[in-house]
Parts: sequence; C-alpha cells; structure tokens
Amino acid sequence: MTVKNSQKERAADWFQKLQSDIIARFESLEQMAEPPLYRGAAGTFERKDWVRGDGSEDLGGGKMAIMRGRLFEKVGVHFSEVKGTFSEAFQAQIPGAAESGGTFWASGISLIAHMWNPHIPAVHMNTRMLVTSESWFGGGADLTPLLDCDRQPDAPDTVDFHAAMKSACDAHDPTFYPTFKDRCDTYFHLAHRNEPRGTGGIFYDRHNTGDWENDFAFTQDVGRAFANIYPELVKWRMNNGWNESQRDEQLIRRGRYVEFNLLYDRGTTFGLKTGGNIESILSSMPPLVKWP
Amino acid sequence: MTVKNSQKERAADWFQKLQSDIIARFESLEQMAEPPLYRGAAGTFERKDWVRGDGSEDLGGGKMAIMRGRLFEKVGVHFSEVKGTFSEAFQAQIPGAAESGGTFWASGISLIAHMWNPHIPAVHMNTRMLVTSESWFGGGADLTPLLDCDRQPDAPDTVDFHAAMKSACDAHDPTFYPTFKDRCDTYFHLAHRNEPRGTGGIFYDRHNTGDWENDFAFTQDVGRAFANIYPELVKWRMNNGWNESQRDEQLIRRGRYVEFNLLYDRGTTFGLKTGGNIESILSSMPPLVKWP
Repeated sequence: MTVKNSQKERAADWFQKLQSDIIARFESLEQMAEPPLYRGAAGTFERKDWVRGDGSEDLGGGKMAIMRGRLFEKVGVHFSEVKGTFSEAFQAQIPGAAESGGTFWASGISLIAHMWNPHIPAVHMNTRMLVTSESWFGGGADLTPLLDCDRQPDAPDTVDFHAAMKSACDAHDPTFYPTFKDRCDTYFHLAHRNEPRGTGGIFYDRHNTGDWENDFAFTQDVGRAFANIYPELVKWRMNNGWNESQRDEQLIRRGRYVEFNLLYDRGTTFGLKTGGNIESILSSMPPLVKWP
Repeated sequence: MTVKNSQKERAADWFQKLQSDIIARFESLEQMAEPPLYRGAAGTFERKDWVRGDGSEDLGGGKMAIMRGRLFEKVGVHFSEVKGTFSEAFQAQIPGAAESGGTFWASGISLIAHMWNPHIPAVHMNTRMLVTSESWFGGGADLTPLLDCDRQPDAPDTVDFHAAMKSACDAHDPTFYPTFKDRCDTYFHLAHRNEPRGTGGIFYDRHNTGDWENDFAFTQDVGRAFANIYPELVKWRMNNGWNESQRDEQLIRRGRYVEFNLLYDRGTTFGLKTGGNIESILSSMPPLVKWP
C-alpha cells in the first residue's frame, strides 16, 4: 500500500511536536532542580538546524536540540526528516529499497539523557517512520540505571518505566509488550561483557500491521508514555543526594554506554561510517566518562 | 621455512624483557614527577598474570602491568604469549592459518600511556611475532599529542619521535620508514571525522623478509627506540604547567581516542568480539574522557 504524502506529513509533524513537548518538560524539570544539590542557573536547550547534503538538492535535515544543564548534565532531543536515495550496497539491507529504486523518506525523534545525579537513570528514546516501496514504524525506549543497586528488574524506576511502556503497548495488542521487551533485552546487550546495557524497555522495528492509522497511533502512544513517565522518575529521584563514590560508579557505568554505542549500536556505527551528522549522532555520548 | 622453538622462545623472552625494561623506566619517571604539579606518591605498576582459556589445556596467557600514578594517569604495558587453534571463520583472515590446520602461536608486547599533563602526548606501542604455517613480525609505535597546538608534523615531540623510529628503520632498510610511516597514517585515521588520531609513527605487519634474524633484530630495534625516545619526550615536557582549559582539551581529545579504538581498531574490536581478555584489551581506554 502506497503511503500518502499526508501520512508522511502527519508523522513528521508528530515527531516535531513531541520534540517540543519533551523539551518543555525537561526545561521545566531544570527549573525545579535547586541548590545545594544542583548548581548554577537552570539550563535551556540550544537549538540548531542542519541540512543533509551539500544543499544542491533538498535531502531534508533536522532540528537538533541539546541542553547542558544543572539537572540534565547532557541531553539531546533531535528531530529529523530526511529523504534521498540509498547507495546500492545499502539497498540490500533495507526492505523495499531495491524496489523503490533506492529512494527513501524517513522522519523521527531521538533522545538520550545523561543526568548529573547518579540516582537518576539515563534514558534513550527513539521513534521513527521509514518509507521505501514499503513503509513502517520503529523505535522504543529503554532505561539505564547507573548504580548497581538500581540495576535490578524490581527496582522502582524500572518497574514504573516498564509499566508505562506496557500500558502503551497493551492499548494496541497484548502481544506487543512481551515481544518488544524481549527484543529490547536482546538488542541492548554488551556481548563482550555478557551484561545488559540497562534494565530494558521496549524495542520494535519494521512495524507494519497493515493498519497505518493504528501503527501511527501506537508510535504516538509510545512517545506520550515516555514523555509522561521519565519526568516522573526524575522528580521522584532528583532530591536524593549523592556522594563521590556514587558519582564515580556512574562515570564508570557510562563507559559501558560508550562501549555499547561504538561497538554495537547500529544507528551510531552506521551513521558514523556513512557520513551522517556527527554532531547529532555523537550527542548521545555521555559528557564525562571514566575507565579507571 | 619452519620457525624453530628456540626462535619463539627468544622472541617471547625479548618481549618480556622489554616489558620489564619499560616498566623500570616509567617507574623512574614517576619518581621524578614532583609536587606541586604532580600530587601524591609516585605510582608503581600493579602486575597481574592471566591464563587463556579455562585452564583445561595450556593455551598460554600473559602478564598485565598497569600503573595509575601521579605523572602517568593510566598506563598499561602488557606481555602475552598465546597458542591454540583459530576458529574456521577466522582462519581465512590469517595467512597460513588454513595450512596450519588453524594452529597458531603468538607473543608480543602492547602499551598505551595516558598522562596527567596535557602537554605530554599519549603513546601507543605494540610489537609481536605470529606463527601459523607462516611466521612474521608486526607492530609499531605512534604518538597522540592532545593539544591542537602540538598536533602538527613539525611539533618538537613529533619530530623527535619520528626521528627515533626512522633511525630504527634505517638501520635495516631505507624503504622501511617511508612505507611504515604511511601505513601508520592510513591506519590511525578517524574516517567519520576525517582526521588523524595523532601525529603518527610507524606501523608494520606480516613482516617477513626471509631473514628471521634480521626481522627479529628490527622488531627489537623498534622496541628499543620506543623505550629510549618516549621517556625523553616525557622529561622534556613534564615540568610544563597546565591550566583547566588545557586539561579540558585533553579530555575531549581522548574521546577521539576512544572512538578510534571502539570503532576502528582491529585488535580491540576483534579481541572484544571473540572473547579476549577484556581487562587487558580495555586497559587502553583513557581514564577520564569528555564528550561535552
């Protein structure tokens, strides 16, 4: 079934609206973070538009937004809408790309937050729509608690985060949550250390049930669930003080995050090796990391 | 030509002797690093032996040595001597491995130093001997100045480091230095940023001229050249004070080092993905890194 331009527009509008909504929520959390735990003025997002390619033809681009704040040590919330033609080598890897003559359109939002407070989990969320001769949605959200004591399936933040994702899934299909939770666990795994990146969440891809409206509604629900639950977790944790050894544990755990992103993450490695927007791709890297 | 056991022994003895020699030189530099620039007591190397495999058969192992000092923020100097059988998938990538039925023997030294002082370049050195049904030497040494002002081909440390490597090469063959310098530049390149990791050095691999004695002597000369020149560079730089913005520039530049190691370095990615000794492989990671 051919995707209409109006569907692309609606999806891109949604991802952009979600970006604005999350930015507003995160800036509001920054306001709530007060001394003595949090130092300096509340942060605000720096925004930067970028254009794909050399400008000679319209290949789309994106709206980056990065905040370096007093509660959010570093957070990127990026929107993009890109189009063009995949290289022949790449077409073979993408469903429907050979049939479309390589042409594609894609739009999405991607977000990674690294917090000053070691008690607050880092988080990643990404949802997107892709169109070749086929079309589908993909994405998910997963939580990375930094301290060992919080890296348990029954830790409260993890329980609440999973409940929020399950609720978004269950509104559409009871099989979604268990399937997408498993995929998340499988994907966010550091094979060389035989350990998970975090405590999971959901991960879905090439999602096309044949009902575009419902698939789009599902992707919207995942975004809304994320935008509601993560600020709740932050508020719940943000007044916990921390000591130097917890900060240290956080910085070391962030090293695992870097290892995952550069060794395994398909988005990161593909993006970097094929001339993607480095600034946007690497804005996911933690601001300060230790390998002691 | 079959390699004799006595040749393997002589090579392994040399790598181990070089490890001890470098350790003594680095510990002596630690003694020379004094307050107020360098804080706390002089560091010494922590040594740790490791055994490859589960111990049910003799697959060799290694002697790790890591120092976290006041001048050397983190430095690993590792010796290893390993043997066994390559997997079939891997045999195809290694000369002579299919012909040897997969069996191999390897010994070498590898070293990476990250310094507190941003004026002192980081350095990497690795030399090794491999035996399948063929045998060869490989290795090299390269310098990574951290501050932009020092990352120039005519910066004094870089000039002296290259002169030392050229001298080790020229004693054996006038074509070595230009060839191995080019290989080093090609290999230590961050494609996604289109920038070099550092200011180069030499890199050689599958080196077998047909004269084992001379090839071994060359590898020894590279080791000696390194063991002489790097301490000289450290001494020349170590009394330069630094400020916070230079420390910052160092920590950011170290991020590029991490990107190289996890995205491109064949030793690191191969080792991690095939169950190598994580502690030894990742001891190359800088102790503190920023992605601001």
